[in-house]
Amino acid sequence: MITSDTLWNDILKIREESPLVHNITNYVVMNTTANALLAAGASPVMAHAIEEVEEMVGIARSLVINIGTLSQAWISSMERAAQAARRRGIPIVLDPVGAGATILRTETAHKIMADASPTIIRGNASEILALYRTGGTTKGVDSLHKTGDALEAAAGLSKKYNCVVSISGETDIITDGNKIIKIFNGHPMMPKVTGLGCTASALSGAFAAVNPLPLLAAAHAMALMGIAGEIAAGKSAGPGSLQLHFIDTLFLISESDVKERLKTG
Amino acid sequence: MITSDTLWNDILKIREESPLVHNITNYVVMNTTANALLAAGASPVMAHAIEEVEEMVGIARSLVINIGTLSQAWISSMERAAQAARRRGIPIVLDPVGAGATILRTETAHKIMADASPTIIRGNASEILALYRTGGTTKGVDSLHKTGDALEAAAGLSKKYNCVVSISGETDIITDGNKIIKIFNGHPMMPKVTGLGCTASALSGAFAAVNPLPLLAAAHAMALMGIAGEIAAGKSAGPGSLQLHFIDTLFLISESDVKERLKTG
Amino acid sequence: MITSDTLWNDILKIREESPLVHNITNYVVMNTTANALLAAGASPVMAHAIEEVEEMVGIARSLVINIGTLSQAWISSMERAAQAARRRGIPIVLDPVGAGATILRTETAHKIMADASPTIIRGNASEILALYRTGGTTKGVDSLHKTGDALEAAAGLSKKYNCVVSISGETDIITDGNKIIKIFNGHPMMPKVTGLGCTASALSGAFAAVNPLPLLAAAHAMALMGIAGEIAAGKSAGPGSLQLHFIDTLFLISESDVKERLKTG
Repeated sequence: MITSDTLWNDILKIREESPLVHNITNYVVMNTTANALLAAGASPVMAHAIEEVEEMVGIARSLVINIGTLSQAWISSMERAAQAARRRGIPIVLDPVGAGATILRTETAHKIMADASPTIIRGNASEILALYRTGGTTKGVDSLHKTGDALEAAAGLSKKYNCVVSISGETDIITDGNKIIKIFNGHPMMPKVTGLGCTASALSGAFAAVNPLPLLAAAHAMALMGIAGEIAAGKSAGPGSLQLHFIDTLFLISESDVKERLKTG
Repeated sequence: MITSDTLWNDILKIREESPLVHNITNYVVMNTTANALLAAGASPVMAHAIEEVEEMVGIARSLVINIGTLSQAWISSMERAAQAARRRGIPIVLDPVGAGATILRTETAHKIMADASPTIIRGNASEILALYRTGGTTKGVDSLHKTGDALEAAAGLSKKYNCVVSISGETDIITDGNKIIKIFNGHPMMPKVTGLGCTASALSGAFAAVNPLPLLAAAHAMALMGIAGEIAAGKSAGPGSLQLHFIDTLFLISESDVKERLKTG
Repeated sequence: MITSDTLWNDILKIREESPLVHNITNYVVMNTTANALLAAGASPVMAHAIEEVEEMVGIARSLVINIGTLSQAWISSMERAAQAARRRGIPIVLDPVGAGATILRTETAHKIMADASPTIIRGNASEILALYRTGGTTKGVDSLHKTGDALEAAAGLSKKYNCVVSISGETDIITDGNKIIKIFNGHPMMPKVTGLGCTASALSGAFAAVNPLPLLAAAHAMALMGIAGEIAAGKSAGPGSLQLHFIDTLFLISESDVKERLKTG
């Protein structure tokens, strides 16, 4: 359902339109996700004050909410921003970082899903399982499960919240509850770089800003992540250089890179 | 008005004196601006708690206030720190990140300008325009204008607040309301790295700590940014490697680099 | 008392067991310390909300508290997390960043030492001196003293709080008040990278998670830091590339690297 042509078209659109992506995200990844969005051609902004989130949403083309380092003030801002985005009709991406690890994270994700109905939920398999089951186990913010284990949970969440669920892992699985897209790109060194999952969510926001079909937008984001990760890993001795080459690759990626490498099904 | 000699002298002074630069800055750039200050030879400290900002200002040689990720508690600390810096007579650099994008940012910048009269205001053209006009448009934190468009606004702000205004962009413009210095160095890939504008503000704080003339300090900071950016870009495939080589270049830059490359007018 | 064998065994344990290390740390280093922990094989999590720190401590194998960018809400969370860690009996590492620079930092460090009795205190010489003496001078967050100057203070702190004190610097000194381990590895460019001290604290948390002897755990962390820093510096033109190669080296480091390079006494 996605092809190298649909992916490349969206990459070009991001570069041409440079959509403003409003991120309310965690402290760990603010710098790297801003750099990934810039390298891909989008225009990132980070803003979390409750006094300004509605106004910032008002000029943004998508909103990315990431619960990786929560506190009550930030939760209030996330909710207000999500409601404003919903009213404006711009896409919302939710990254439920560490859902299942603590009640605060699981409940915050549930509250945002229920109140603001995100367009795309992007998490790892443990997080998606934790959001669907009551309970579930997560090891901090790293996944203990394969993405296939979370397929039923993803489909269930999709239907319940009328959204796309994007599970990142060795094989990425993206579903709207009916259709399923799998992305087989990526590299085993990628989980050794902190926050590449968060980067996937931020890029999902950029693709959702230029593509009205959330299933395709989410799949394009994971495909770009995987292809750029493969190319970058080929130049990298370890995770430090992988982060650097990943950003460079987002900036440099060409139509032929996409054509030669995309593996989907 | 600046020459490669005046620039090089100040670079050496920063390396020799290693001035403590107190930053109250945004979450996105804390790491990269601390690294830029260290690489240039200064000693960065980040501290934002209202209980400690006056004491930290008391041992610092300059204060850099950056409103890139605001909240009310941070605004209070910025104001208290700025007043303490004013009382001690150490230079204050204000980076009005995203002024014009939200009322909170515009009003916070106005309040700091009015209450604490910064020594140097360093922003992009859209931000400087937004601070001078009532209203104005900004696309998040990226500029929609060329620096020349903001010259009148910069001169107006300089006179109103008795400060230096430093506009970064393709041509950097630095003015105290009377004299104008232009810097023609830099590289088009630089805006693809998040927070290089914030780094320019942090370096302005380091130069202002060692040079009593704010116009020269601000111009030297922009010249070092531009020259280091050019050298780094020459070694970089994309913005990931540009960030790395930029830090290395700040550490390695030599008198001959400065002499060969400085383009000012 | 440590050998390349004891060090290599612990490195392997971290890679095999991938212990979850809960960090409540400063904004400047969250990304780089998370990456260092991942590269070394551990599993980092950052969580600071008072509602979730006890629960996160409940699944973690060690807790790292770093006071580099304090505020009252974070101090409360640090205290609650430390008490939970103490109750569970998992190791606590305290990094008293900037102790001596402001009353808030000195008092917060004292309060955490008194209430939660950390397993390991890891700081630079100025910080350790400031915590032992009433008063003392610190230049922001950088040390003005050699580690040897702080040996008496370290021994005193060790005895008073029944903990290990690890002083990083040109020669690292680790003591439990009786035994002293010195590490002679490292490279002079390392202080030019922001937050490598914080990384040392984070890695101390990883080693303490797999080694029940805090003196050895702390010494292994400093030895790995020093050896990886040496190897990385050999490939680096400046501090930008040093940060990158340092992360790569943590990922790649081999038994022969450890055997050839460890210098201890």
